[in-house]
Order: sequence, then structure tokens, then C-alpha cells
Amino acid sequence: MTHTYPYFGVNFKVYPNTIGEGGLELAKTVERVHEETGANFVVTPQIPDLRLITSETDLTVSSPHVDPVSPGRGIGKVLPETLADAGIAGATINHAENRDTLTDIAKKIDRCNEVGLDSSVCVDSIEMGEAVAAFDPDALIYEKPEDISTDRAITTTHPERVERFVEMIESTNPRTKVLVGGGIRTAEHVRAAFELGADATGAASAISTADDPYERLTEIAGALPE
Amino acid sequence: MTHTYPYFGVNFKVYPNTIGEGGLELAKTVERVHEETGANFVVTPQIPDLRLITSETDLTVSSPHVDPVSPGRGIGKVLPETLADAGIAGATINHAENRDTLTDIAKKIDRCNEVGLDSSVCVDSIEMGEAVAAFDPDALIYEKPEDISTDRAITTTHPERVERFVEMIESTNPRTKVLVGGGIRTAEHVRAAFELGADATGAASAISTADDPYERLTEIAGALPE
Amino acid sequence: MTHTYPYFGVNFKVYPNTIGEGGLELAKTVERVHEETGANFVVTPQIPDLRLITSETDLTVSSPHVDPVSPGRGIGKVLPETLADAGIAGATINHAENRDTLTDIAKKIDRCNEVGLDSSVCVDSIEMGEAVAAFDPDALIYEKPEDISTDRAITTTHPERVERFVEMIESTNPRTKVLVGGGIRTAEHVRAAFELGADATGAASAISTADDPYERLTEIAGALPE
Amino acid sequence: MTHTYPYFGVNFKVYPNTIGEGGLELAKTVERVHEETGANFVVTPQIPDLRLITSETDLTVSSPHVDPVSPGRGIGKVLPETLADAGIAGATINHAENRDTLTDIAKKIDRCNEVGLDSSVCVDSIEMGEAVAAFDPDALIYEKPEDISTDRAITTTHPERVERFVEMIESTNPRTKVLVGGGIRTAEHVRAAFELGADATGAASAISTADDPYERLTEIAGALPE
Repeated sequence: MTHTYPYFGVNFKVYPNTIGEGGLELAKTVERVHEETGANFVVTPQIPDLRLITSETDLTVSSPHVDPVSPGRGIGKVLPETLADAGIAGATINHAENRDTLTDIAKKIDRCNEVGLDSSVCVDSIEMGEAVAAFDPDALIYEKPEDISTDRAITTTHPERVERFVEMIESTNPRTKVLVGGGIRTAEHVRAAFELGADATGAASAISTADDPYERLTEIAGALPE
Repeated sequence: MTHTYPYFGVNFKVYPNTIGEGGLELAKTVERVHEETGANFVVTPQIPDLRLITSETDLTVSSPHVDPVSPGRGIGKVLPETLADAGIAGATINHAENRDTLTDIAKKIDRCNEVGLDSSVCVDSIEMGEAVAAFDPDALIYEKPEDISTDRAITTTHPERVERFVEMIESTNPRTKVLVGGGIRTAEHVRAAFELGADATGAASAISTADDPYERLTEIAGALPE
Repeated sequence: MTHTYPYFGVNFKVYPNTIGEGGLELAKTVERVHEETGANFVVTPQIPDLRLITSETDLTVSSPHVDPVSPGRGIGKVLPETLADAGIAGATINHAENRDTLTDIAKKIDRCNEVGLDSSVCVDSIEMGEAVAAFDPDALIYEKPEDISTDRAITTTHPERVERFVEMIESTNPRTKVLVGGGIRTAEHVRAAFELGADATGAASAISTADDPYERLTEIAGALPE
Repeated sequence: MTHTYPYFGVNFKVYPNTIGEGGLELAKTVERVHEETGANFVVTPQIPDLRLITSETDLTVSSPHVDPVSPGRGIGKVLPETLADAGIAGATINHAENRDTLTDIAKKIDRCNEVGLDSSVCVDSIEMGEAVAAFDPDALIYEKPEDISTDRAITTTHPERVERFVEMIESTNPRTKVLVGGGIRTAEHVRAAFELGADATGAASAISTADDPYERLTEIAGALPE
């Protein structure tokens, strides 16, 4: 496992201010908050910018995508070996904006294991989490598609679901970490996530489109368990 | 139009020796042959390596993929703006290993135009080329999926098809350039492509898996029209 | 060409009252209006109900889907030969709720031709219509996805677009028929479609969810050119 | 659960002799063997032929496909309610020739439950079977894509895998039935499947392309447990 827990994940998606130098600046802000507070962060930049962030920061960097392919043919594919070579620590699988077949989820987890990438698989129900746990991923990201880009964090609206999700993992595959996402915007949301038993949480728009990401991240850093 | 014609394209796909430093070395070899011979080349590296190649070489660099998205949400997508920011000159659309819907082909060409990327759309028949010409792409890549990774270059097996393809473009959209691909391995194949009226040609496995890419590229450079 | 023009198409989609006997009742209503008014109709039932409608009515029946496959393997595929065997007259390709790759559009049109099915390909712009015209389909269905299931018929909101679409087809492939759809609900919409040069028009929700489909269809029948 | 176990499944796929009357003849042959031997069969015809088979035979009929949709929009979709209305007993999900996303597998199983269809989900590994078991499907179809249309039945080549698969289901979700498929051609294969603990087995090409399906089915009927 290449990620250090607990952590707060910052997902750049393809927000306009996360392109190239803009993304690097955001990553540098994350790094500064890490250095000032000691809080762990994982950043997920845009794919063409991954090497820029790994070469210019000491952050743990994850890829927003990976393909279930091996070296050879396959134009435009994101090869696990290339991510590992770029110093990437992990990859997101089955995101709500990019659903995978069950077959590809299994292959992607296998390929990540083979090259030393942490596999983090998105699921939106306890059953789906239990299903993916059968493949022994490093982490599950539990988030409801309808919460994404809102301020309706599941930690506030349905805390009991998070607790049940955490219990399910503890009883089926305790090695697998749990990240709670979707609508996480405030330090309160973050604190609640960890109190409910999550190992990590994170956000995309709440940071990437914040007026002052430094301030927002500093508040959040204070909500992470030591 | 950002590409200089005529040119020979070198597509890295995800061949094992094109990862990171391996890809950079291959790109440097291409650059050396360009400097020694004056022949134009376009390289298409792996997506996570695009910035590495644009920052370390003066080559024209194209992306093997682009998504039909705009800045905002969309995890793991390859944003046209990010490619442009990275100094990329163009993008491949509708490759045989990654087919696009008609709707996405139209959107991708539009988005490429908006950010100043050359759009090169793969097609495998004259009718399909005529269809895509309606969207006014910068280039069409005419290649048969069954020829890819073989030595059965269409320039040798069916030269008349290349001629008819070139005539079709000249009569419908003469602005659009024609690249012929699929099974191109030798200087003879390359020479034939240009004699048949192509504006460009290229290869993937023939270079990326060659014992001596420098030698192979130098031979090919000699076959490009001045 | 198996369809008789001009016609009004009634698309059942998967609306609840179009299942089995419900769909047959709706088809019988269409047939009754045809017999009373002489107006031509084409119905597009649900796939498992296609044979029910062809065996119990004399209507022209089209399939809402077809796959680009040939007899053999391919579980769950809708084989063109099976549609032809069931007395189906045509098939819808590339609907906005089910987009096809460019490659599959070409193959589907070819396969329809081979077995004697009319191919009707959905497009949402003049350029896309021009593109698909290169494959010589029997008909193009011009409709904007955003108009579907609304009452904003393009014939009212943007009549000039319909005129330009019709002109484009007349100059590129006059053999191909033009159906205008999306938000068509009233006799006025239908009359306008034909005045603008369309060969056919049609609706889904406006008929399938109408309180009195007989009344609605009778009004529309009066708006069809003789 | 609508299927009677043990059974032998006959999948028509889109083989040429299973179209319309050809498919009905094959189904009648299956029915005759059932009547003569008492062996249970489930047939999976082509989608446009489903009602033909349910109306003309007393066989248990399954659909080769179902879509994760509810009544309403959704052109060309196979609606669970329409299958139930047609007298269909179940549906195949996630077949190797038609892979589903994890999200769709979950939705399809739910929708099948809501309308009273047996859900049978294809998987190709024990882990994948364990994963899908989390959604409590009625049955899992364990078959390797590479065995399909061959004579390399997993019951012969890797009997221990079948045993482990059966054990896995017994310990995680004993309610779920296990069907073993892929390369099943002979009475020996069938006998082995049941001896290894399977609840059902089946074939496509071995029956659909047999010179004498009646003879083949009669032999197989003799291999089914009473």
C-alpha cells in the first residue's frame, strides 16, 4: 500500500484552473499545507500533468484513470507501467463519471497490484462495496453520484450508511481502506467522515474551484485525525 | 494547421520500450534523424509522457487520444485545453483500437479547433473518409484495422484504394490532409504512400519495436519527398 | 425502400402502456386511423413485441434497434436477418438514447441493405447528416436530443434549420429521405414539417403517453400531405 | 426462482438456423426431448423471437439480454416488464460477448427481482463469482470466454475450478444456483458438471449447429440427474 492513512484527497478532475501550471500551483498549495500542518494529502491531477506534479512536488500523486492493458498495442491507453514509472502511487477505478465493466475492474486491480499501484475503486452502495471487496482492492471510495459537486455530504445526510459501509469492510476484508466522498466541502464534513470510521476522504470541486484553496485546505487539515 | 507536411508519424502506442525515459530516448532518436536528414516527423507518445517529450525535444508532438469534454467535471478525461497547454500539436480521433461515436467525432473535431489542435481522424474506407470530411478535420488517417501490426501495407496490397481515397478528398474537401497507415514498415512502403498522393504516413510497431530505430528511421527519411 | 412516404412515425420506446397487449392496442389504433384517413404510419414497437405487431396488424413496422452483426455468435444481439424474417420493414440507427460508433453506423446500414431493411439514421446537425449521407442510408432522422419529450418542435423553433437540412440532402444524396423529429406533438408541428420539405415526421411520448391517442392521431393524419 | 433445477440450457445466440421458424423448430425439438425423457431444459432464443417461443411451447424461456431500465424513454431497450409480460422466466446478464458495468449488473439484478425474472449473471472466475454473489442473483453462470464455441469444457479441463466455485457459493450465498458453461458439447461434459456440484449447465453452438439436435439433446438428457 503506497498511500499513508489517514489522508485527504484533492481531485483536480478537469477544472479549468488545474491545467498545467495552474495544477502545479494548486499542488504546491497542498504541499505547503501539508508542511505547515503535517496533514496527509493525496492529489489526483489531470493525466497529461501527472509527471509535472510528481517531478515538482513530494506529494503522493494518484492517477484519475488507468486502463486494464499490458504493454503493446492499445493507442491512447493509460498503461499501469507508465504510471508507476512516473512516480504515481495509485489509480482511481470505476468513477461515477467513467464506469467500468466488472471484468475491467478485476483486471485493473490485478494490473495495479502487478506494478505496485494502489487501487482505489469507486462504489455507490454497500452491496457494490462488498462485491468489489472480493477482488481485494487497496481501497474503496464510497460516494453517491448524486452527491458529487454538491454540498450534501453523505457524512451529514446519511451517517449511518457510512458506518454500515465501514462495518461491512471490517467484516469482509479489513485490509481494504475506506474513503468517503461526494459533496465533502467543509472541515465538519471531514471530521464526521473520520468519526464514522473512514480511513480517508476527499473532494474535487470544493478545492479546485475554491476562492482560496489554501484557507480551505488549512481548515480541513485541522479536521484530520493525527 | 500545426503539422508540417509531408511527414512521417511515429506512434508509440503503449509498447514497453516507449515508457518514460524509453519514450524520450526514442523521441531523441527521431529528432536526431530529423536534424541529420531534414525529414519531418510527428511523434505520438503515451499520454502521461506528453509533457516530457514536448519539454525535452523540439519535435511536433501529437496526442494518441483526446476527449470531447470542456473544462469542469469529468474525471480521467484528456482535456483539449490541457493538451494545448502542454505544447501538443494535434490529436488522433477514432483509432481502430478506440472507436468513437459519430457524435463524439464531431465534438472532438470542434473542440480541437477551439484550442488550436490539429484533428486527425482514423477511417478504414473511402465512404467513412467521405463521411468524416463533412466535419472538416485537419487530416484523415486511412488505415485498415486488419493491416495494423503486420507488414501488409495498403500501399502495396491495394494501391488503387489509396489513389481513390486521395481523389475523394481532393474532390470533397481538398483542405484536409491524408495520412496512410497500417502495416507501413519499409522505405518502399513510405515512398509508395507519397507517390500515391498521401500527405503523410506513419507507423507504430515498425519503429517502436525495431532493433535499430535510428537505422529504420534514416532509411524512411530518405523516402520522404523534399 | 420499404416505407411509403410521406408518413408519420409512432415510436413506442419503452413507455409503460406500450408493453405487449398495450402496444398491440396502440398499433390497432394507428391502423384504424390509417384505414379511416388513408394517412401512412410507421410504428416502432419494443423489440420483444415486434412479431406481435407484424402478425396482428398490416402496418409498416420498424425496429428501434439493430446490431451490426451477422448470423453466428453474439448473445442478445438483434440480428438483421431475424428482423427481416419477422416482417420488419426497417431499423433505427444511432438514436440519441443509444449512440453508435461511426464504424457501426456504416456496418448497420450495409447489413440492413443486405437483408432488405430500410436504414433510418438519427443525426442532430446538418454536418452530421452530410456525414451519414456518405453511406447512402434510406433515411435520415433529424432531431435534436434536447427537443425529445418536450413540445419544442424544431419545425417551430428553428424552421430554417429544417430547410437547410432538406437542401443539404437534395444536393448531396437526393435518394435519401428526411424525417424530422424531436418535440413533435401537434398537427401544426406535423404540417410545418412537411411544408419545410420533410418526407416524414413522427413522435414518441406525444402519442404513447397521450390521453386519447386515437384523437391525437386523427388530427395528425389530417396534417399529412396527400 | 422461476427455473426448475437441475436443467440444461440451450442458448440460440444468433445462429442462422435459430431465426423465427427455425428457432421454433429447435425449441419444439427441445420440448419433445423434455416430454420423452422428463429432463428439464431452459431455452434462450433471439430477442425478437421470445414471444414466438413462449406462445408456441411450454418450455421455460430465458432472455439473452435485459437492460437496466424502467418504463419510459429508452429506445431499443429490452425492458424487464416486457419480458415478464411475454412469459419469459429469466435473463442473462454480463455475458462474455456483452460485458456490463458493475453498476448495471446491480441494477439489472434489482430490476429482474422487481418483475419476477430469474437473474443469471455470467462470471469467469471464482473472485468474480464471489463479487456478484454480493448482489444475491438467482444464478451465476461460470464460464471462461476462451472456452466458448470450443470442445474444451471446463468440467474436463479444470474440474477443480468448478468444485471451488461451487464451494465458494455454498459458503457465501447458498441460495444462488450455479450453471457451468463454455465448451459443453457431450453427455460426458454434462454428467461431469453435475458430479462437480453444478445446478445446471448448457450450450449454444453444440446444439444450435448440431447436425441432429434431437439426438444430441436426448443423449444429454440421459446425463441429467433425476
